[in-house]
Amino acid sequence: MHNSLMMQLIGEFIGTAFVVLLGDGVCAAVNLKKSKANGAGWIAIALGWGLAVTLSVYFVSWLSPGHFNPAVTIAMAAAGKFAWSSVLPYIIAQVAGAFVGAVMVWLTYYPHWAETTDQELILGTFSTEPAIRNYFWNFFAEVVGTFIFIYGLLAFTKANIPANLNPILAGLLIAGCVFSVGGITGYAINPARDFGPRLAHQLLPIANKGKSDWAYSWVPVVGPIVGGLLAALLFKAIA
Amino acid sequence: MHNSLMMQLIGEFIGTAFVVLLGDGVCAAVNLKKSKANGAGWIAIALGWGLAVTLSVYFVSWLSPGHFNPAVTIAMAAAGKFAWSSVLPYIIAQVAGAFVGAVMVWLTYYPHWAETTDQELILGTFSTEPAIRNYFWNFFAEVVGTFIFIYGLLAFTKANIPANLNPILAGLLIAGCVFSVGGITGYAINPARDFGPRLAHQLLPIANKGKSDWAYSWVPVVGPIVGGLLAALLFKAIA
Amino acid sequence: MHNSLMMQLIGEFIGTAFVVLLGDGVCAAVNLKKSKANGAGWIAIALGWGLAVTLSVYFVSWLSPGHFNPAVTIAMAAAGKFAWSSVLPYIIAQVAGAFVGAVMVWLTYYPHWAETTDQELILGTFSTEPAIRNYFWNFFAEVVGTFIFIYGLLAFTKANIPANLNPILAGLLIAGCVFSVGGITGYAINPARDFGPRLAHQLLPIANKGKSDWAYSWVPVVGPIVGGLLAALLFKAIA
Amino acid sequence: MHNSLMMQLIGEFIGTAFVVLLGDGVCAAVNLKKSKANGAGWIAIALGWGLAVTLSVYFVSWLSPGHFNPAVTIAMAAAGKFAWSSVLPYIIAQVAGAFVGAVMVWLTYYPHWAETTDQELILGTFSTEPAIRNYFWNFFAEVVGTFIFIYGLLAFTKANIPANLNPILAGLLIAGCVFSVGGITGYAINPARDFGPRLAHQLLPIANKGKSDWAYSWVPVVGPIVGGLLAALLFKAIA
Repeated sequence: MHNSLMMQLIGEFIGTAFVVLLGDGVCAAVNLKKSKANGAGWIAIALGWGLAVTLSVYFVSWLSPGHFNPAVTIAMAAAGKFAWSSVLPYIIAQVAGAFVGAVMVWLTYYPHWAETTDQELILGTFSTEPAIRNYFWNFFAEVVGTFIFIYGLLAFTKANIPANLNPILAGLLIAGCVFSVGGITGYAINPARDFGPRLAHQLLPIANKGKSDWAYSWVPVVGPIVGGLLAALLFKAIA
Repeated sequence: MHNSLMMQLIGEFIGTAFVVLLGDGVCAAVNLKKSKANGAGWIAIALGWGLAVTLSVYFVSWLSPGHFNPAVTIAMAAAGKFAWSSVLPYIIAQVAGAFVGAVMVWLTYYPHWAETTDQELILGTFSTEPAIRNYFWNFFAEVVGTFIFIYGLLAFTKANIPANLNPILAGLLIAGCVFSVGGITGYAINPARDFGPRLAHQLLPIANKGKSDWAYSWVPVVGPIVGGLLAALLFKAIA
Repeated sequence: MHNSLMMQLIGEFIGTAFVVLLGDGVCAAVNLKKSKANGAGWIAIALGWGLAVTLSVYFVSWLSPGHFNPAVTIAMAAAGKFAWSSVLPYIIAQVAGAFVGAVMVWLTYYPHWAETTDQELILGTFSTEPAIRNYFWNFFAEVVGTFIFIYGLLAFTKANIPANLNPILAGLLIAGCVFSVGGITGYAINPARDFGPRLAHQLLPIANKGKSDWAYSWVPVVGPIVGGLLAALLFKAIA
Repeated sequence: MHNSLMMQLIGEFIGTAFVVLLGDGVCAAVNLKKSKANGAGWIAIALGWGLAVTLSVYFVSWLSPGHFNPAVTIAMAAAGKFAWSSVLPYIIAQVAGAFVGAVMVWLTYYPHWAETTDQELILGTFSTEPAIRNYFWNFFAEVVGTFIFIYGLLAFTKANIPANLNPILAGLLIAGCVFSVGGITGYAINPARDFGPRLAHQLLPIANKGKSDWAYSWVPVVGPIVGGLLAALLFKAIA
């Protein structure tokens, strides 16, 4: 990345907006009443989120490294692969992008909110909710899930994958983890992806919306950061 | 592309016919009664349309650039990557190909129309219909959906993807967008893909068919063109 | 292919056996009672058959060109890409391989036949059956389906795909066609794949089996050959 | 592989732990009550296991050859591609890794065991169970299934696949085999993947667990080893 920090931040902002537009988009498609994809289920969620990440990395590949995720940015810094001085600006760009992406999902599916009366489905389209509420084990699942994801990203750097195929691998990694360890909390693994849309849910006049569940909101923020740091530790030990 | 315009037009014609034969084909497979794929749902639609696009681009790769879509052709011209003088001939070839593809779907699934009594399912096999009729928001969804698609095609040109893998990326882009932003209108994103089959629906003696819903037909024509032009604008601003 | 004809025939025999073991295998997995995949539906069929073809071509890549299908072999000869003198030996090896593959499916799923009382599901695990019996339109669907498949194989030769990725493209082609034009007849597109297993169904002492439906058996033999020849014609006209 | 044996063993240990965490993870996601993926079915299982293998091979690609499976290690030695002296250490590392992976699945899905009252679903999340109990035919199915898998791995070595794409092929092979020959026994094909988690099931205080079904446990150990040796025999005969 020889771009200026400003170009990188534009890339992170746009890329994260696309991740959330496409990722929360597939949640909307599956969750919202009368959507043509209503009821398509977890396979659609896993494939849709995998594609959201693959595509979004390609969408800004000449601008930014495609983190789109504060837990990735922090772990890359901890692994010595990213400058600590850029961490905070990256996080701000990511959260702002995620917020804009969530607003776009709200607008794109506008007529469907009024048809959907289940408040949990509406919140779950924006940010993650646990299948069984238990803060300790929900936190644990986010730590494990993000550990796998970020360890994987680091391991790919050692696998001689041609750089232009890396976004495809990243998408397979997301899809695989959603299938395997997404059943507990919905697999946030990204503080920006969870906090930005939760803020949008709080602020926007969404039809039929309920509470934004701020009591849970620390789990998908702290869990991913801890999981990413543990992944960086393991990677440094064996790489 | 060093081919003569005529060779390019043959490629666009054949390729768009294949896109619609395979794309509307999967809609027929899922929608029509007694089809072995009846009820396979939105995942089949998303994967089937993605494969339809990937395969069709390969099918004419030595003849044309594989637009198959007036919104793509117009946006490429607006982005300075295609000659304005070829735009109209391309569009005519694309619409003609889409019409022929729709006729082929009608013939290939011939015995199944008489078994299918739902007129909406029959029209929905040919052209797109909104899940909730609201012209403003349906138009908005087509703008957003085509914006993502065509921005993606432009972004791929900056991503150092080997040219022979580009059709696979295009198919992943289609599948991802069908999953994420296809739930509102069925994701036309292509005036030829919608208008050609709608005309075929109007003209062919299809068993059990109803009205061709021309009142809606401007949405999947104008929406994609606007979305594509906006994508070209963003791309030119940051590329 | 610089192998002796005998090595090529061994490759076609083994490869076609694997195609049918894996392809009819996924039909068994989905159709047969108490199978863990029972009811997994058409998406499993499409993905399973696509993978069956991709894997089987890799399985004998150093021995044969991986036709596994008399309609492909005949069309390649008609397109000037294969020696007519090898056509008959290839077909014999393909049919013999398909028969052995079907025997292996019978043995592998042995306890499940006695649990499955629907005779159509049992025959449909071995060979294809039309969704709606109408010999003219069933024939037409096999012609169209094989036309797309074999036109696609020929078009790939012009697309500069690295040779070692060709089996993946072939599998995507199969999966795409099963999704889009498989709903009418089950998409035989391969005389060996249909005739060999039908013969096995006739000869083997399968629990709960019914008639082998020889009246239909000409459709998935003649239709694919006609479709393949038409594909070779189109390809020669535009390539 | 020019790594020391110890580095290779660390790779096999970590890689097999990831295979089981991700592979048994998708079983947990689909089987356990209140999981967000509950009921996603066999397609999720096939895709999830395929991704588990692809990702895990990348996760330790610079450490070990990515066997993760005693049947693979033994067959590679029999095929002359691996030193017999390393076989036993590899197997120990694989079984230990599989055990740790199963413990991680138990912890990650911790709140969900108490909600799941079906003891077969709980055991089936850890190790394999036959759909219809018949030791001879269950054994036969494991032999056939592992034969295809390990013959495929050997055949890939002759297919000129770029080394960095091999893990993707391995995952497609797993997914294809789960679709096609997984319906009978759940497709263990890996003694470590079955024995390690079965031991974990026996030893861990899992809520609602029943017996660990040791009577069946020899089938997914002996069957895969026999199938792998037969695959090595065929490969040596024709390669």
